[in-house]
Amino acid sequence: MDFQQQNGACVVLKAARAAGVNVCFANPGTTEMPFVGALDMVDGVRPILGLFEGVCTGAADGYGRMAGKPAMTLLHLGPGHANGIANLHNARRARTPILNIIGDHTRAHVKYDAPLTSDIESLARPVSVWYRSVADQSDLARDTLDAIAAAMGSDGTRGVATLVLPVDLQAVSVDALQQVEASETPAKGFQPTRVSEVAALLQSGTPAVILMGDRALSARGQEAAARIAAATGARCYSETFPARTERGGGLPDIDRLPYFPEPALSALDARKVVLAGALAPITYFGYEGIPSELAAPGDMVTLATPGEAADEALESLALELDLGHHPVAGVAAQRWEVADGDLTPQAVGRILSNALPANAIVSVEGGTCGYPFVTASARAARHTILTNTGGAIGQGLPVALGAAVACPERRVFALQSDGSAQYTIQSLWTMARERLPIVMLITSNKRYGILQTELNRSGLPTDAPNSKRLTLLDDPAIDWQALSKGYGVPSQRAATTQALVLAIEKALAHTDGPCLIEMCLP
Amino acid sequence: MDFQQQNGACVVLKAARAAGVNVCFANPGTTEMPFVGALDMVDGVRPILGLFEGVCTGAADGYGRMAGKPAMTLLHLGPGHANGIANLHNARRARTPILNIIGDHTRAHVKYDAPLTSDIESLARPVSVWYRSVADQSDLARDTLDAIAAAMGSDGTRGVATLVLPVDLQAVSVDALQQVEASETPAKGFQPTRVSEVAALLQSGTPAVILMGDRALSARGQEAAARIAAATGARCYSETFPARTERGGGLPDIDRLPYFPEPALSALDARKVVLAGALAPITYFGYEGIPSELAAPGDMVTLATPGEAADEALESLALELDLGHHPVAGVAAQRWEVADGDLTPQAVGRILSNALPANAIVSVEGGTCGYPFVTASARAARHTILTNTGGAIGQGLPVALGAAVACPERRVFALQSDGSAQYTIQSLWTMARERLPIVMLITSNKRYGILQTELNRSGLPTDAPNSKRLTLLDDPAIDWQALSKGYGVPSQRAATTQALVLAIEKALAHTDGPCLIEMCLP
Repeated sequence: MDFQQQNGACVVLKAARAAGVNVCFANPGTTEMPFVGALDMVDGVRPILGLFEGVCTGAADGYGRMAGKPAMTLLHLGPGHANGIANLHNARRARTPILNIIGDHTRAHVKYDAPLTSDIESLARPVSVWYRSVADQSDLARDTLDAIAAAMGSDGTRGVATLVLPVDLQAVSVDALQQVEASETPAKGFQPTRVSEVAALLQSGTPAVILMGDRALSARGQEAAARIAAATGARCYSETFPARTERGGGLPDIDRLPYFPEPALSALDARKVVLAGALAPITYFGYEGIPSELAAPGDMVTLATPGEAADEALESLALELDLGHHPVAGVAAQRWEVADGDLTPQAVGRILSNALPANAIVSVEGGTCGYPFVTASARAARHTILTNTGGAIGQGLPVALGAAVACPERRVFALQSDGSAQYTIQSLWTMARERLPIVMLITSNKRYGILQTELNRSGLPTDAPNSKRLTLLDDPAIDWQALSKGYGVPSQRAATTQALVLAIEKALAHTDGPCLIEMCLP
Repeated sequence: MDFQQQNGACVVLKAARAAGVNVCFANPGTTEMPFVGALDMVDGVRPILGLFEGVCTGAADGYGRMAGKPAMTLLHLGPGHANGIANLHNARRARTPILNIIGDHTRAHVKYDAPLTSDIESLARPVSVWYRSVADQSDLARDTLDAIAAAMGSDGTRGVATLVLPVDLQAVSVDALQQVEASETPAKGFQPTRVSEVAALLQSGTPAVILMGDRALSARGQEAAARIAAATGARCYSETFPARTERGGGLPDIDRLPYFPEPALSALDARKVVLAGALAPITYFGYEGIPSELAAPGDMVTLATPGEAADEALESLALELDLGHHPVAGVAAQRWEVADGDLTPQAVGRILSNALPANAIVSVEGGTCGYPFVTASARAARHTILTNTGGAIGQGLPVALGAAVACPERRVFALQSDGSAQYTIQSLWTMARERLPIVMLITSNKRYGILQTELNRSGLPTDAPNSKRLTLLDDPAIDWQALSKGYGVPSQRAATTQALVLAIEKALAHTDGPCLIEMCLP
């Protein structure tokens, strides 16, 4: 056999590469071996191994958010894909383009229901904007490009496009490259009539909130929104869990809509809600006696939907309001004074804010330090924040990994709660393997803090024996430094503010691989 | 609020307890808080926390295989369940009874498509023999008992019954316990006419293989099969990946049908196949030029289906063949001589076989040492082997965990390959937390050995750069002792046969918690 001969997987790889896809987050199995072989026959696609599929799918999410184009995954049959579903769920909510490739049994074998056979479509549809299993070798290139176009939003929403590749079609010898042309997905604009409607609303003096998501949270979008707010008295909020938001470096301090329903309701109370790239605000969970809809449908007006050019729509709105182009002064970069002493969430947020180099990326998962950091970081150097959009925990570390692959010139931080870190802890190994200089800050408070809060909210005791057993993580306490060493990642521990400052300095000096800091919080 | 007042989750717990369910492998979130609260209001259900859902579902599989009745899981919405799918897939293939409980949003909230909302049914159906979302509070007890009955096989196949509990129905106040009665699932028998058919076949002198699965692999089943084989010349094989098989302690040495298709075909060649609790033999994967069916449908006859009393059918067959009750001598327990030197898979298998105390349970995942161990352990003391039935890796450690919960009086071993251990590595923490004296033997060869074998089989090079990148785990090498320490589990490292013998001795002396042994293989 001539290894230089092209197989079906080579066709997929060449088509994907032609459409700009050049990273593959992979955890292959037997049914993906021809694809693995093809990665050595076709140049220009970088394979990155994950020890667990949730690492691969979360990394593809982080990559896609930062690169604005898809990475591909390579997953093994239904069960391998299933291990990646939670982070694909998050990617779906973030509308991140991903080419999700799942290997399948040879077509003739599926009907025999061998042990690894399962209903891949049923497992994949809930997280996919597009799904197809390649039916014939002549479809390989076309299906790949259709998948990428769908992931980029050609049919509507951007997101996860799942392409199933039976192993016989990966392995089949293909004589000539299938001639297909990758098409650019045209950038989406906005609807000028909506700008006029919103302008009229704001000019009428109606109290309003501009709820911002997606492209409204670019620097351009935020600057335009701040001018509009200053001139009209409208308040600006970011959606609670944005896929990506720019912050600091002179940008306005746009708060996030609160997570809990009572303060969220009060933020929106008696105001019209202008949706700028955000979905209609809904409570995160359903709570007794509180409406799921945080704003009544009749009290909302859409300036731009997610996927549309909400930033351009906001600039157009500013023009229509005759505000010109003069920027409103944002928040000046400024260091926080942090007192010496034990670590607190507020101190962590401020210390990290102080430490961010320009153009850092911060993947935030977990509320304990996440909220205080975002509050503090309005004063930081310009940076990008990535949050957990879908609520499936285990997202922060892989997203940091993917962001670091997408942006090798930027420093990446993961501000990560301990409980949620465990779901995709294998991320550390891939970070070490790929020499990605990610700084992980683990909030080690040895509990599922949010669950204790929710028990309290439900009027349930937090100190009953089984409830403690299911919310405390202190028996045994996870030894984060040992765990980190296990995966080849150097680590430090910090229990005081001074120690954390020094630990971050030391971590930033380490540029040839990741570094973990266990932050001991009460 | 009176915490002793009964909520809907209490009804579920009491119904489950009445049906014999008294362990809950849990990884709850906000939508399961009333259930967590109920675990402190209702006695008799032991909650065991996993840091990742795959640990919970795999543990429920191991528990169910050993206890013969279901444990319940407690998982958080679609994404939490999704993290457990791979091991539910394995449980489905093992036909293990599991009560798979998934919390859901309050019913009125689902339609708003909040961030954590997903199509739970689409995600759950592929691994469930039964699925229901509780619709009304008056259904709570009935639905719970229906789920348990379905898990036990009342409607056909035993397996995973998925019960979705909206959080409002967990939290609802319930005045009186719903009156329902748990029913026993009647034990299945066998079909006498089939016994006669098989007797006639064997008496005709036709060369035959008895392919054994499920209850045929009990001690009774194996002893009967061995007598039949000795008298008729039939050969006995176990299915390749049995959910549970007894071995050693004087039982006959019944080999497993080989994994790779060529030797499997030759084992069955020119013989009729008698299916005793096993499914028709199918190749694990589809291979070019090799039929998926290892035996033609016309060459098979069913003595008992999986779920039927295959052991009783074999005993009945022995009677019909007029073999009486005299047992055939099995393999005497005997120590292997193992030369001093480097560890090899064969040496590992023999050393472990020598070390097994009576009535041990061995969870085997991974081929490198798994096959040599099973070969060796015919000579060991009587033990039970649990294998990976569905092929979704990450099953061995959680199954060992669940088996140890089900059988506190038996020593449990996990013979586990390094690559597959990583998918549910968080199992270590729960083992430490629950003080389960499990001995984990990690085959640390720093590679996905099976994938290198499959590359070779496909005629692909194993040493091309990207193929190496996707099959070797040596950069960085996982430091198993550090990892183990991270989760509070003491560990040892063994690179020689002498060291392994001593390490296992030392591990067996440790009875108040788990112990890990990294076995360094070339």
